[in-house]
Amino acid sequence: MEASEVHILSARTALPGEPLDNAALARHFGMDELWEQWVDAFVGTRARHLSVDLGTRRLRSTLADLSAEAAAKALADAGVGPADVDLVVLGTATPDQLMPATVNVVADRLGIDGVPTYQLQSGCAGAFQALEVGRQMLRSGEYRTALVIGGELCSRHYDPDADLARLDSAELVNFVLFGDGAGAAVLTTRPAPGTPVVRRMLNRLTGLNRVPGQIVEWTGALDRRFADRSHIKEDYKAIEASVPVMSREIADELLDGLGWAPTDVDYLLPPQLSGRMTRRIVDGLGIPAAEEVSPVAAIANTGNAMPFFQLEEVLPQLAVGDRVLGVSVESSKWLKAGFALETV
Amino acid sequence: MEASEVHILSARTALPGEPLDNAALARHFGMDELWEQWVDAFVGTRARHLSVDLGTRRLRSTLADLSAEAAAKALADAGVGPADVDLVVLGTATPDQLMPATVNVVADRLGIDGVPTYQLQSGCAGAFQALEVGRQMLRSGEYRTALVIGGELCSRHYDPDADLARLDSAELVNFVLFGDGAGAAVLTTRPAPGTPVVRRMLNRLTGLNRVPGQIVEWTGALDRRFADRSHIKEDYKAIEASVPVMSREIADELLDGLGWAPTDVDYLLPPQLSGRMTRRIVDGLGIPAAEEVSPVAAIANTGNAMPFFQLEEVLPQLAVGDRVLGVSVESSKWLKAGFALETV
Repeated sequence: MEASEVHILSARTALPGEPLDNAALARHFGMDELWEQWVDAFVGTRARHLSVDLGTRRLRSTLADLSAEAAAKALADAGVGPADVDLVVLGTATPDQLMPATVNVVADRLGIDGVPTYQLQSGCAGAFQALEVGRQMLRSGEYRTALVIGGELCSRHYDPDADLARLDSAELVNFVLFGDGAGAAVLTTRPAPGTPVVRRMLNRLTGLNRVPGQIVEWTGALDRRFADRSHIKEDYKAIEASVPVMSREIADELLDGLGWAPTDVDYLLPPQLSGRMTRRIVDGLGIPAAEEVSPVAAIANTGNAMPFFQLEEVLPQLAVGDRVLGVSVESSKWLKAGFALETV
Repeated sequence: MEASEVHILSARTALPGEPLDNAALARHFGMDELWEQWVDAFVGTRARHLSVDLGTRRLRSTLADLSAEAAAKALADAGVGPADVDLVVLGTATPDQLMPATVNVVADRLGIDGVPTYQLQSGCAGAFQALEVGRQMLRSGEYRTALVIGGELCSRHYDPDADLARLDSAELVNFVLFGDGAGAAVLTTRPAPGTPVVRRMLNRLTGLNRVPGQIVEWTGALDRRFADRSHIKEDYKAIEASVPVMSREIADELLDGLGWAPTDVDYLLPPQLSGRMTRRIVDGLGIPAAEEVSPVAAIANTGNAMPFFQLEEVLPQLAVGDRVLGVSVESSKWLKAGFALETV
């Protein structure tokens, strides 16, 4: 017996508040026009949405808020009620709390209960991991419909009172590169003509003996003795050098595995690090004929939410036979992730 | 085609440092003999191992350290080399960092690379979730051997300088209830006569409209504005009332689903909250003939490590035909978890 095909019925997203463009960010942090131009040119990200209100310094929404909003829309689009959801999977690097896992709070908000819930702790690969866990659980035949969620509250690491003028560029870039958001998709093994099926998923650690390209720490209640160590570290040189190469390897492996030619890809969902980095990555992928879906310049890097923003944009455009390639790299410990979809 | 059977080839564990008994704890925190007797009688946990050295206040080992140690022993016991591991899954509530996920650091230490890695964020249900994700991935037929890990560094929330005399009993109990540790198991779809197969897994959220019984917060680099909110909250009254009932429901559901009678269970691996709570839970399970495997009094509640300590103890005792029932409750958002094994 062939394992069941898994269809993506819908994908929707949620963003907190109004977009915050580079000019607004410059005003808040007291930076000049030169800095604004530096962001435009060297980062290529024009705006982001933040859950933290820079004026009041308060969080306006949690990851559970954004995830529940996106999931409710995805379920409505798919015509799936809470009682029809057999499984919930969420991928994030920034859960609201360590316990309970945010996935359970989201399920509660949606009226989903009595089903397995899983939360993957991961950076940019987490959405792909969540999609794969959802897909494999569905393929087991024990479940029919899965709600898969990805989201990030990068605001948890955002200091509205930071003195940007005193930060070096590696720290500075964190204030413009990331945004908050969440997304959700409904997967099913029911026949669903006209929707994409997941032809292949890829999740692969490739970090042996490599120093992490990104580290994010957390501090517990009572270990404030660690509160002063540097909490976020990125090795942007390593990221710039490795991510385009790894992206190409992911695309090639997915295409080779399916016997697809680069010209068979109709829609390309590339990694969304920043406007500028995504440009470089896409140029190296060797899939020039595909239509690129890159929301990063408009909403910034939203981590595990991003693949759902890309899917939300591409799903309504798909015709039978259309092929979609999604690629992501998590630079933390160098994780490759990707998927190949085909509308049937 | 019947999905492949998944065997547990081995299970091993690791603990940091020497056991810290209640007398040693009382000495460190300047508590009296009365307090020591209170711990003995009302908690029923005699000792625990902590990664934090109470003398120097330093962490002696990380979750990655303990997990890699346990995993290396489990792999050696199973006769499985790093190149034979097709998949790594880790469950924890206390990852070393938010990024990279600890599972990837552990894989690196073991020389495992090029494979999918997943980390489940969960409390006491996380080991069961990790076992289920590993099992379902294996059953897909794409992989043959999985390394499944669970562990906890409760020390991350431990304040060696706390003034225990000024804490109320709900806070006080956190200092005696929890311990650090990690465990690992090797799962395979290869034929392995004489080893237990996983007959059934159970993972089920049952928290609809219920207040969490346990909350653990984290603080990010720059949101120290949250540093003073209470980071760990337990509703011990709700836990005492709910966990025995939920445990019975889990056991009944697993047995009913398999058509097993309570007397068919040879080994019982019950929830390991504390010596006293485990006693109460087991008394209510209605499986009196089974041999109970309860390490909690000797090593305290080690969260996601605990099922592996129980498996490590039971595996060498199993004869063909022996049946094992494992039960766990995560009080955070009221998750049910369990497994049923049978040696073939």
